[in-house]
Amino acid sequence: MENNLEHKRHTLAHLLALAVRRDFPHAKPTIGPAIDNGFYYDFDFSGGPAPKDDDLKQIEKNMRKALPSWKSFSHRVVTPDEAREVFKDNLFKTELINELEKNNEVITLYTVGEGHFEFTDLCRGGHCDSPADDIDADSFQLSSLAGAYWRGSEKNPMLTRIYGLAFDSKTELDTHLTQVEEAKKRDHRKIGKELDLFTFSELVGSGLPLYTPRGTILRDELGKFSESLQARCGFEKVWIPHITKIDLYKTSGHWDKFGHELFLVQSQESNDSFALKPMNCPHHTQIYVSRPRSYRDLPIRYMETTTCYRDEKTGELGGLTRVRSLTQDDAHVFCRPDQIEQEFENIMNMIKTLYGALGMEFKARLSFHDPENREKYLGDDELWKMAEEKIETVAKKLELNYWIAKGEAAFYGPKIDIMVIDALGREWQCATEQLDFVQPGRFGLEYTDKDGTKKTPVMIHKALLGTIDRFLGVYIEHTAGNFPLWLSPEQIRIIPVSEIHSEYARQVYEELKAIGIRATLDDSNESLGKRIRNAKTDRLPYFAVVGDKEVTAKNVTLESRKGESVEMSLSRLGNHLLTEIDTKAL
Amino acid sequence: MENNLEHKRHTLAHLLALAVRRDFPHAKPTIGPAIDNGFYYDFDFSGGPAPKDDDLKQIEKNMRKALPSWKSFSHRVVTPDEAREVFKDNLFKTELINELEKNNEVITLYTVGEGHFEFTDLCRGGHCDSPADDIDADSFQLSSLAGAYWRGSEKNPMLTRIYGLAFDSKTELDTHLTQVEEAKKRDHRKIGKELDLFTFSELVGSGLPLYTPRGTILRDELGKFSESLQARCGFEKVWIPHITKIDLYKTSGHWDKFGHELFLVQSQESNDSFALKPMNCPHHTQIYVSRPRSYRDLPIRYMETTTCYRDEKTGELGGLTRVRSLTQDDAHVFCRPDQIEQEFENIMNMIKTLYGALGMEFKARLSFHDPENREKYLGDDELWKMAEEKIETVAKKLELNYWIAKGEAAFYGPKIDIMVIDALGREWQCATEQLDFVQPGRFGLEYTDKDGTKKTPVMIHKALLGTIDRFLGVYIEHTAGNFPLWLSPEQIRIIPVSEIHSEYARQVYEELKAIGIRATLDDSNESLGKRIRNAKTDRLPYFAVVGDKEVTAKNVTLESRKGESVEMSLSRLGNHLLTEIDTKAL
Repeated sequence: MENNLEHKRHTLAHLLALAVRRDFPHAKPTIGPAIDNGFYYDFDFSGGPAPKDDDLKQIEKNMRKALPSWKSFSHRVVTPDEAREVFKDNLFKTELINELEKNNEVITLYTVGEGHFEFTDLCRGGHCDSPADDIDADSFQLSSLAGAYWRGSEKNPMLTRIYGLAFDSKTELDTHLTQVEEAKKRDHRKIGKELDLFTFSELVGSGLPLYTPRGTILRDELGKFSESLQARCGFEKVWIPHITKIDLYKTSGHWDKFGHELFLVQSQESNDSFALKPMNCPHHTQIYVSRPRSYRDLPIRYMETTTCYRDEKTGELGGLTRVRSLTQDDAHVFCRPDQIEQEFENIMNMIKTLYGALGMEFKARLSFHDPENREKYLGDDELWKMAEEKIETVAKKLELNYWIAKGEAAFYGPKIDIMVIDALGREWQCATEQLDFVQPGRFGLEYTDKDGTKKTPVMIHKALLGTIDRFLGVYIEHTAGNFPLWLSPEQIRIIPVSEIHSEYARQVYEELKAIGIRATLDDSNESLGKRIRNAKTDRLPYFAVVGDKEVTAKNVTLESRKGESVEMSLSRLGNHLLTEIDTKAL
Repeated sequence: MENNLEHKRHTLAHLLALAVRRDFPHAKPTIGPAIDNGFYYDFDFSGGPAPKDDDLKQIEKNMRKALPSWKSFSHRVVTPDEAREVFKDNLFKTELINELEKNNEVITLYTVGEGHFEFTDLCRGGHCDSPADDIDADSFQLSSLAGAYWRGSEKNPMLTRIYGLAFDSKTELDTHLTQVEEAKKRDHRKIGKELDLFTFSELVGSGLPLYTPRGTILRDELGKFSESLQARCGFEKVWIPHITKIDLYKTSGHWDKFGHELFLVQSQESNDSFALKPMNCPHHTQIYVSRPRSYRDLPIRYMETTTCYRDEKTGELGGLTRVRSLTQDDAHVFCRPDQIEQEFENIMNMIKTLYGALGMEFKARLSFHDPENREKYLGDDELWKMAEEKIETVAKKLELNYWIAKGEAAFYGPKIDIMVIDALGREWQCATEQLDFVQPGRFGLEYTDKDGTKKTPVMIHKALLGTIDRFLGVYIEHTAGNFPLWLSPEQIRIIPVSEIHSEYARQVYEELKAIGIRATLDDSNESLGKRIRNAKTDRLPYFAVVGDKEVTAKNVTLESRKGESVEMSLSRLGNHLLTEIDTKAL
């Protein structure tokens, strides 16, 4: 067995159980697995007091004290009766044993430690060979307490869960702690409030953000950038309503698969009922079928920045990364099979340009079908094979950081999922590019080929930013609210030193506004120091203090967020900023 | 009694009843009122054959024959029993008489005409003094036959309705007929199909248009124009979701008034329920309340081009002028009472600029409160008085073609409704500007005034185009699909005379595309004549035929839709078109 991190974490869960029982002998351990970043153990403390946050340090000490005596695990296979005898005081373990018995599974007990520190648990194994040697005593930390229902059901008793963090070394633990700290500072909900970007209203509902003027600029600039890249590649904007009769989803097949996840819409004055659209492809097919199409018309590329609605659970909603109203930079290409490679390459080029401009790296997962499970997928064998080859050709040609994930294809076609990496190293699935061999047939889409025969086109689904709300949440955290100039809701603030400089300051402000720069003027009664501090807290890319020197020279001293300072004539200032905006400099 | 047009139309309904009975003696007349453009009468023909379209000419002849003997009406008050005796063979009239009796109303019979042409009907009056003298025999015409349920209910027997058109003179009738003919030619549903602007899908539902790339350009260009005018006046874009908990409308008061008209949205996985928004103001208030506001922050102006949903009856849906998905160029101003005049003036100036650029005249209805019914309106007396004065001041200052409509105000404030006049003289209510003294209070909106006290702002609702879908329907008919260059989905088409001119034609096309002009290239195999005819039927503002002469001279002959032809160098062509686009020339 490898001494991998998961085994260490699992071992530490056992160690936690022992440590808890030393100070809280009435604690009944239940289940304690390894998880991302560490481990937890759920205890029943109903026989006495439960630990408080303050107790975690002492429990951690107990763990460190016991660790040196945990030389190695031994295990033995027992009968259900033997196991029940060992855990006769623990109804939770007894329940688990009864289930194992019912399912005819082997029951094992794992024992580790010497003397006081000996500990036995019902377990399937998966530990370090020698905890005392393998686990660095400074590489873990108990992090928090929480309530948790036995086996996750609210019908069961409430237990106490103790969480721990664990890594291979103290350095890695510290890195993680710093990252968590940094992530808290960058929390987009906090920055969103500070920078007045969006708000939620209890009257409107959770998961339904409302964007202020500043937040709307961010949304719009991102959306416009995506649309401009698409327009350059021949994508044309279309418009569809946000509702549809469910007949549309019965035809597409979505009703059978996801019908129960839809928000249903009901007229109160008639029997008409609809669904709020959770995606746009079925609507877009209806524009395609509105005219006869020829092979010469293809590819037809429809794009639309439009809002979809998905019934996310209220408990899962928080900020912008999970919302019920999702605005997507969606598009659908209808093309001939021989056009797949070119279209995939065009779209992947857009993705490269977009994330390059936003200063974010990404990895590409090529989600292909699993030949061992051919029956899971619909569509022609030859088409699948050809398409997957073409997709990998594109990935190679564009030198993507990619890997092939067999069995991750959708049932309707292979796809590329883009995992964007943020400044804290976290990965987010944003862009996607998916082939679809199924929907065109279901909707009876056709084109007349060169030889006069009717053929079915293939469809490509693509999104560059994905859900703009979600991407904005990610990007706020990636930049910590320090947006590049082209995206900044407020691009430059002009600050007159005192009242006598206000007139010139206003002139600077007006001239910048006139050429479309989002400039503001802060001639409020606050002290100069306060106003400069405000410009910094507001994370402005630029501000300019205007005093005697500037008024006399008719120039401006441009102070950047990065701490640089450049003096330039007023006439140069506008062009200087416009160039930075047009090139989307980071 | 005045001999007005309504009286003539009502009289002609009687005359129609007489004329029908001459050829169809078994016809039972039921009800026959004056309507817009004419009159109708509903008959029960269950006792024999019903007239067909071919019979209308003969019935019309009968009317003209009888008219000279219709010198004057006489009437007498009768008892219910007397009336029932007169109409003893007519169950429909009997039902009306029974109701009049039940309601204790006076029953009158009107008689007119001599000999064969004498005719008596159950009626309340409202006829010409002397039909023979007052009605021009050529000023009316029977127009169509239709089925109609007795008293409009599908539970009742189906009757036959005969429609007639009637005006003061033959000239006016002819004008109307020409207009109807022209309106048919300009029907936006027909032109929308011809020009591939939008489509409907049975799978999506009626009243829910889907816009093709060409139609989306029109929508977007109109929306962008409206937004650019607003941005210049300090309006800032915001974004709101299309759904909300109904709590929002309970607070605004809309739930009590219009709750049953809302489309309700239901989660299938939880108990969460929502409404599709039929308007945007309540959502926008939630952005206003997300921060404390000072008197210095006002006016705050939120604009948004966003889609609302209204439960229009299916039978009323047709084309774009009545839809269930309404995209509006909506905005809300939150301001102090002393800012009302300036804000109204700014908005009215935008309306003038917008419709001026679109080449449409408009009239303004100043909808004020009725002082005799003060209890119908909410809000402070002084505020109403001041606001209405200010509104009229603005109307005078901007020299609007306006009139005051007392009693037409909303309960929450006075407003200006803009009636736009199209090329056929028809009026369409599009733009609106409404004061609201009520909603800010209901939502607890506040600002801190100069003296530190909390005050409630007033709100102004405004739309320039109103519903963009509807306006587009109107504008397609106004222009008959001949859009000005800046709006045209396809602005210019380049047509090479033959294959040897294709290269130069493509160069022209590429150069125009590069500077953002919506150019196309028609180098298809069709004959030159056919391609030129296509460019004309497609109502292109410009096309350019490129042949030997053009290739040699490196120039282009620009042919306009109006039939003008100008030769110019390729280098001048781009600027020539861009100038026309930028100035939004008509």
